[in-house]
This record gives sequence, structure tokens and C-alpha cells, in this order.
Amino acid sequence: MTWAATILTLYPEMFPGPLGLSLAGKALAEGRWSLETVQIRDFATDRHRSVDDTPAGGGAGMVMRADVLAAALDSVPDGRPKLVMSPRGRPLDQALVRALAAGPGATILCGRFEGIDERLFEARPLVPVSVGDYVLSGGEPAALALLDACIRLLPGVMGAPSSGEEESFESGLLEYPHYTRPVEWEGRRIPEVLRSGDHAKIAAWRRQQAEAETRLRRPDLIERHGDARRPSPSGAQKKKKKKKDE
Amino acid sequence: MTWAATILTLYPEMFPGPLGLSLAGKALAEGRWSLETVQIRDFATDRHRSVDDTPAGGGAGMVMRADVLAAALDSVPDGRPKLVMSPRGRPLDQALVRALAAGPGATILCGRFEGIDERLFEARPLVPVSVGDYVLSGGEPAALALLDACIRLLPGVMGAPSSGEEESFESGLLEYPHYTRPVEWEGRRIPEVLRSGDHAKIAAWRRQQAEAETRLRRPDLIERHGDARRPSPSGAQKKKKKKKDE
Repeated sequence: MTWAATILTLYPEMFPGPLGLSLAGKALAEGRWSLETVQIRDFATDRHRSVDDTPAGGGAGMVMRADVLAAALDSVPDGRPKLVMSPRGRPLDQALVRALAAGPGATILCGRFEGIDERLFEARPLVPVSVGDYVLSGGEPAALALLDACIRLLPGVMGAPSSGEEESFESGLLEYPHYTRPVEWEGRRIPEVLRSGDHAKIAAWRRQQAEAETRLRRPDLIERHGDARRPSPSGAQKKKKKKKDE
Repeated sequence: MTWAATILTLYPEMFPGPLGLSLAGKALAEGRWSLETVQIRDFATDRHRSVDDTPAGGGAGMVMRADVLAAALDSVPDGRPKLVMSPRGRPLDQALVRALAAGPGATILCGRFEGIDERLFEARPLVPVSVGDYVLSGGEPAALALLDACIRLLPGVMGAPSSGEEESFESGLLEYPHYTRPVEWEGRRIPEVLRSGDHAKIAAWRRQQAEAETRLRRPDLIERHGDARRPSPSGAQKKKKKKKDE
């Protein structure tokens, strides 16, 4: 089944944008995912096609109207998670990406201006998702990042199917350092262990590097995931499942 | 002075992409920021114009060559921070966005494939930056998000100059909820305090809502920023500076 993305936005021209090229673009052309955009302004009800109004209580900027956004959301069939990109949302992480990629797709509402009338979140089952602790001009660049992260995990999209499993965050650790030819460059050599051909030693070295790197740069990841040295239950499960399928 | 972005990428066609529209697109047309792309492949040295090779020590995927990337980086004049988008980097936050936006611009290296030869990070003064704890198909969607966050803070880009100061993260808190017309929608009314006209009461309500929201959804932000009730030193400084300029 095709993984289906529907984007509600004031700027449909922003899509597929970067997702029309490279891995995601090829997968789109091959029908591994589909993209539909909904112009929010089509659901405005006044002559001026307004989608926003001044904030109740005063303040700078404009607020997107709940009634217009609800009408736009209601036009999309149910059956897929409905997300709204928002700095107040649940922080996006690789676990959420993996869960979304394993599902039927996503409907993504992209806000603009100061924000969205809060009543929309009470009246519709929306999941607010944040791509990071920074403020964007709108939800569109965030939606592009979220889609990119999901699409690369869809079956058949990545060149090597194992690519996804040794990456940053998949085991609660940052990824180990990579090296490739030339063996010597500007007086720096590839670590000898990687040229030893001893696969067990290489795996141990990479694990140790990933742990040291994570401890140094992102101790918060280790705190969050508990003892990083034990394989995660999800990883163990994955392997078992694979064996069954073979 | 124009804020200058230079992007090193294998997909120059991805830029400006979504940044060619809306706020960022208008600002680009007005010359408030400039965009230059550098095709990394132009710095390959072999007949096949290779930019990557198999990972030393084995494993899936391909690794970007340090020599080719270094040549591409060395072609860009110094004087601006050189960033590389990487899930192993310093997490992007609004403080870093603000610091970048206040500077002369940024040179951003976008990796693809499994990763980048580690020796590049030792040999060149690169700042690895991560937009979040998820894995993208390449640095390009991350660079678009980072640029979008910076551009909206450049002088003259946002409609109302005060828009930036009450937003999520600017005071270590998520933003308070917004409301706009209609006053009643699907049986839900705008909170009365916002219609009272009492500005002090409205400000207090918003502050209390922002604190409650942050405590509920993102207690980690409060832990990181200490007592959120005190104005941040940077906020106090900002206000002082503004007065001086007047």
C-alpha cells in the first residue's frame, strides 16, 4: 500500500520541494508514497478568503482561525494520524518517525503567523509535533523534514535495507564515526582497527566509539534510554521478526 | 549588510525551495539575505566525479570523502560560521538561531549517504548542528529548516518587529495559547480574560498559561533554564539595548 501524505497549507507550492528530488523524489515517482496538498484558503467563508484574524487579548501578529482550519481538516478522510507542526508539540524523535513510517501515512497541518486558535486542538484529534526547540516561519519546513525522515524508512526506498538499523538514535546512541578512502589524507590515517578485517573487533570498536561520542556530546540520550549497552527490546524483536520472515 | 548563506550540497536544485516563497522568499527578493549553492561534485578529482566510497571496516551505505568535502569547503571564503548538518551535532535551539541570525550569515555543508569521513571534522573548523533526534536522507531538509528559522529574525523580515520576542523558547517557555474570532465556535468561547481589555490581567494569564503548558508538556525546558519566572538575562539585556538605540 502507498504511504499517503496530505498536507494542509497556505503554500501548496512548497511541496514536494526538496522531496521531489533524490531518494524521496525517486520513491514518489515509483509510487512508494503519495502526496496531496490541500489549500487552507479554499475553506475560508468570507469574501476576502480570510484564514486569520487579530489575537484576542491583543499582541503582535495574526492567529489562524479554528473554524477555517477545522473545515480544511474535516475535508480529509480519517484513518491516518492527523498531525500539526508546532513548537509546542511532542518533540519528533526516531521512534515516532518509525511509528509513522510503519503506518498508512499522515495528514499534516502547517500553521503560519503567530499560531493557531487553541480551540482547534480541543475540538479535533490533532497530534502537535515539534521538529525542534526553535521557531520557524511556518509548519512547512518542519513538515518537509518529518516527511523526509519517514519516507527514507519506507520499504524499497533506501539502497541497502540495513542502512536504517545502525544509525544515530536507533539504539539510543549517536552513530559511530565513519571513514573511507583515501587511507591517508592530510597526514591523518584511517584507524588501523577498521583495516584489520577482524569483524568482531571492528564491531566492538564502533560500539565503544558510539558510546563515548554519545556520553561526550549528548549525555541526555543515555539518561533517557537507560543502560545503552544492553540491546533495546525493540532491536531484539526486530531481529526475531526478520528471522521468521526468512 | 546582507545575511549570506552558502550551501554545499549534491542537490543545489533543492534551494531555495520553500525559502523562495512567503516571508523568506520576499526577503530574498528584497536582498535581505542572499543564497549561493556550491555543487560538491565539482570538487571530485577522478573521472567518475566520485564524492563517496565504501566505509572502511565494512557496513552498509557509502561514506562521503574528506578530501572532496574539504576542497569544497576551502572554496568558500572565511568570515562566516561553517556548519555541517548532522544528527551527531549540537542540537539547534532558538539561542543558536538568534546568534546565527545576528551574524554575517552561514556556510552549511549538507551530507548524504551513511555519513562523512570523520577526519574532515578534525581537519576543518566545522560546527556540527542537529535539527533534532531523527535521521534525514541528507542535510538539505535540515539546512532549509535552520535557514528558515534564521531568516525570519533578520531585520525587516517579520511584519511586526515584536513578533519574535513573545514566542516559544524565547523566555525558556512554550508559547501561551492563542485565540481569535469567532468569539464562539462549536460551543467553545474565547476565555473571558482575553476580552476584558485589562492588559495587566491578560499578561499575567498568558504567563501563567505558558508556564503551565511548559510544565505539562516540556518539563525539560524548565529544568534547563532554571526558574522560568525570572526574566532571562538575555531578555533584560535586549530591552536595555533597545532603549539605548531609541
